[in-house]
Amino acid sequence: MTEPAVPRRHLLDLEDFSAAELEAMLQLAGEVRDAHGRAGGKLGWLRGSVLITLFYENSTRTRASFEIAGKALGAEVVNLTASSSSVAKGESLRDTIATLDALAADAIIIRHDQSGAVEAASRWSRTSIINAGDGWHAHPTQALLDLFTLRERLGTLAGKRILVVGDIQHSRVARSNCWGLTALGAQVMLCGPPTLLPPGFGAAFRGRAVQVEYNLERALAWADAVMALRLQHERMGSGHLPSLREYRSIYGLSVERMAGYPHLPVLHPGPVNGGVELDPAIAHGPQSLVGRQVQNGTPVRMAVLLWATGRRNLDLGSLRKEACHA
Amino acid sequence: MTEPAVPRRHLLDLEDFSAAELEAMLQLAGEVRDAHGRAGGKLGWLRGSVLITLFYENSTRTRASFEIAGKALGAEVVNLTASSSSVAKGESLRDTIATLDALAADAIIIRHDQSGAVEAASRWSRTSIINAGDGWHAHPTQALLDLFTLRERLGTLAGKRILVVGDIQHSRVARSNCWGLTALGAQVMLCGPPTLLPPGFGAAFRGRAVQVEYNLERALAWADAVMALRLQHERMGSGHLPSLREYRSIYGLSVERMAGYPHLPVLHPGPVNGGVELDPAIAHGPQSLVGRQVQNGTPVRMAVLLWATGRRNLDLGSLRKEACHA
Amino acid sequence: MTEPAVPRRHLLDLEDFSAAELEAMLQLAGEVRDAHGRAGGKLGWLRGSVLITLFYENSTRTRASFEIAGKALGAEVVNLTASSSSVAKGESLRDTIATLDALAADAIIIRHDQSGAVEAASRWSRTSIINAGDGWHAHPTQALLDLFTLRERLGTLAGKRILVVGDIQHSRVARSNCWGLTALGAQVMLCGPPTLLPPGFGAAFRGRAVQVEYNLERALAWADAVMALRLQHERMGSGHLPSLREYRSIYGLSVERMAGYPHLPVLHPGPVNGGVELDPAIAHGPQSLVGRQVQNGTPVRMAVLLWATGRRNLDLGSLRKEACHA
Repeated sequence: MTEPAVPRRHLLDLEDFSAAELEAMLQLAGEVRDAHGRAGGKLGWLRGSVLITLFYENSTRTRASFEIAGKALGAEVVNLTASSSSVAKGESLRDTIATLDALAADAIIIRHDQSGAVEAASRWSRTSIINAGDGWHAHPTQALLDLFTLRERLGTLAGKRILVVGDIQHSRVARSNCWGLTALGAQVMLCGPPTLLPPGFGAAFRGRAVQVEYNLERALAWADAVMALRLQHERMGSGHLPSLREYRSIYGLSVERMAGYPHLPVLHPGPVNGGVELDPAIAHGPQSLVGRQVQNGTPVRMAVLLWATGRRNLDLGSLRKEACHA
Repeated sequence: MTEPAVPRRHLLDLEDFSAAELEAMLQLAGEVRDAHGRAGGKLGWLRGSVLITLFYENSTRTRASFEIAGKALGAEVVNLTASSSSVAKGESLRDTIATLDALAADAIIIRHDQSGAVEAASRWSRTSIINAGDGWHAHPTQALLDLFTLRERLGTLAGKRILVVGDIQHSRVARSNCWGLTALGAQVMLCGPPTLLPPGFGAAFRGRAVQVEYNLERALAWADAVMALRLQHERMGSGHLPSLREYRSIYGLSVERMAGYPHLPVLHPGPVNGGVELDPAIAHGPQSLVGRQVQNGTPVRMAVLLWATGRRNLDLGSLRKEACHA
Repeated sequence: MTEPAVPRRHLLDLEDFSAAELEAMLQLAGEVRDAHGRAGGKLGWLRGSVLITLFYENSTRTRASFEIAGKALGAEVVNLTASSSSVAKGESLRDTIATLDALAADAIIIRHDQSGAVEAASRWSRTSIINAGDGWHAHPTQALLDLFTLRERLGTLAGKRILVVGDIQHSRVARSNCWGLTALGAQVMLCGPPTLLPPGFGAAFRGRAVQVEYNLERALAWADAVMALRLQHERMGSGHLPSLREYRSIYGLSVERMAGYPHLPVLHPGPVNGGVELDPAIAHGPQSLVGRQVQNGTPVRMAVLLWATGRRNLDLGSLRKEACHA
């Protein structure tokens, strides 16, 4: 409801972000995390603001993470769920966006099952739109928290080798990470069964350092960190996979396989199919960054909310000072 | 949880409101809107209050609007959804109301699929009950925001001619508008197919200036503003209508038809069935007040909440002053 | 997100609570109620805290009560609902808890349809876990508000005779009350049809003063207060009961039967099956404590939240003082 000092801005994907813009966002997230810790809870930087979450797909984790991030900044959060009607979806989404736009919220956080729906929403909206995942297309806040978590562990991403394993074809997490990681100078290797990772897949990233490798052992030997993707249940029974047992033996980060890489950092966007793409003992073990990813989701999404609502140019010094006196 | 300075009061319909009471409510809404804008977000007038929304029907728009209105006043909002069991509905609603009453909320906002259910709830409750729509019966906050929006555009409602088009028979929006518009001196014309608008319909409004007209062209030529109603999906396949195409050609506010009335203000309570009762190009075009209706929903519902919780006698001067210092 | 002054603690059942611990909790609830009333709404004792409700079973009452209690203390409340998948339930709950744990909430309030699921969650979590009802096992906050309500009416529980009537076998409310009531010196009599109350049932409470009686008239003549349990709908059609009419005539607190005990306090955890285990005229009549139970749910759950988040050792004097200046 408040007027931002600078224009509002949509977060649709990391494709268009320069290295400098990503650096600024990650630095803001770090500052926010520190300020949040010092303030012992709630900061008031979005007091008087209203954020709307509009989820066309189930999600407890991402929705809760945005809600906690918004409330930690003092904003009010209104949660809406919706189901895509099979008829006239485009029109229905357009009307919904027009209505929410008229409610004069400060940002609308959308998850949609159709690739491109969030970008369409952004064209119809004067309110900042934040993509919380659309179809196979993009999941920029997940990728940002992955970048944040990897940089926290590896020091820098420049020159680092990041392996992503699993159902690449249907993964919005993989796509957004390819854009974000390579923008910051990392090399990405994608690994998975050919039915879920077409040979020419890397070419979609237009000259970015993205390569494809079908042999997981070679890929693990190459990597500085590995991210396993969730195998969607709908793939499991289809013709994409021989069997879950065979998938685990060829592409799973199993206890037996990871015994050869005990210090390799392991990420996963959650929720994990235990014993399929990632064994529980690894997910809950010392080399896992899975919990850290969830933890970092809060400050990263706080930073995104500040950025999207026009507070991204806040002087970090004054943030620091305000937090100390909160 | 706080004790109001004056007795609590239910908002069930506009039928019992005098012109003076409606004027006061609309004036309060205007003051609230100005104060809200000046305060740049949250006002604290309901701080410490708890509002409960209890929705037996799906609604993202109305529920979100009440939630935003409540939070903009500093209240806490607790959202409950419920499904009417097919057995012993009355008793179940009574027990639910008794429970919510005991929780000592400051107001309970109810939507129910049965006409009269909200009035029944009000008889069992010491807490203020606000009707967010019950069956075909009433939707007073929608009508209030329609009055507010029309008055904003037309200057006054006295002597103005307001046309309502569509499925009048099953419309709580039409009924509440008939009471509210005529109380403020407007004339109402209802227009729709005879299957959805019985000839003697206007008589239900006991001497108010409500007339029925089956010819849309004559009705449009008469009107100072036109409100299209949503055609409920369950009517579409039934014997009420020949076909959607025919409905649009006879009763739809289509691009072709509205070319003859390019300056006539058009309202719709939403969500619109695009291309049926209202064409998208009209709904999103310059003569549309649809977005304005949604925008005005927030201050109007803020005013209703202040009124229902006993803050309706707030001295407007002190409201103004408080807002300036917030 | 804040660091508690003392270790966090789970509330799983009343089984392990000593008389002194129960006394302290009930005393805290009384202090909280007084402070809340004096403050005229919101207290700030959990400002900056985040509470998560995670409900695997439908519940409007209990969830709303926790949400209101949390918000009355200034906390933020994030509501999550979930459905237990039929496969790998344990693992899924574990991952969900790990995720919520990483979100760094101050307490997680869980309702689950499986007995023991909440205790399992507590073993995986560093965050305080509060049991809002798990299967047939335990519902400690309901029992606490029952203790609070009974003590308010009877003065003390020491030596008092409390009758619980109905489907004892499947009742988490009955079980938690058996532990809590007897810890505070009351005697408990359980009464219900043998199909819903096996003869040796009382032995499960290891030497506590819990007895079984199949004759409701004898039981009522003995009692200082009676609590009727909700007859779950799934029992009604099964082999557990002859018919609802026969159930009412033998075990129902009907108008005719209660005419003989017009001053006996009557409790019910809600929602009531009117005319089955309890007649509406009794539930809404002068001897009913049903509304009082709901009212007391708020301060009792506020006390539980303070206790679970490490504020249980708050000096009550300073609470009192702070409330006066809020």
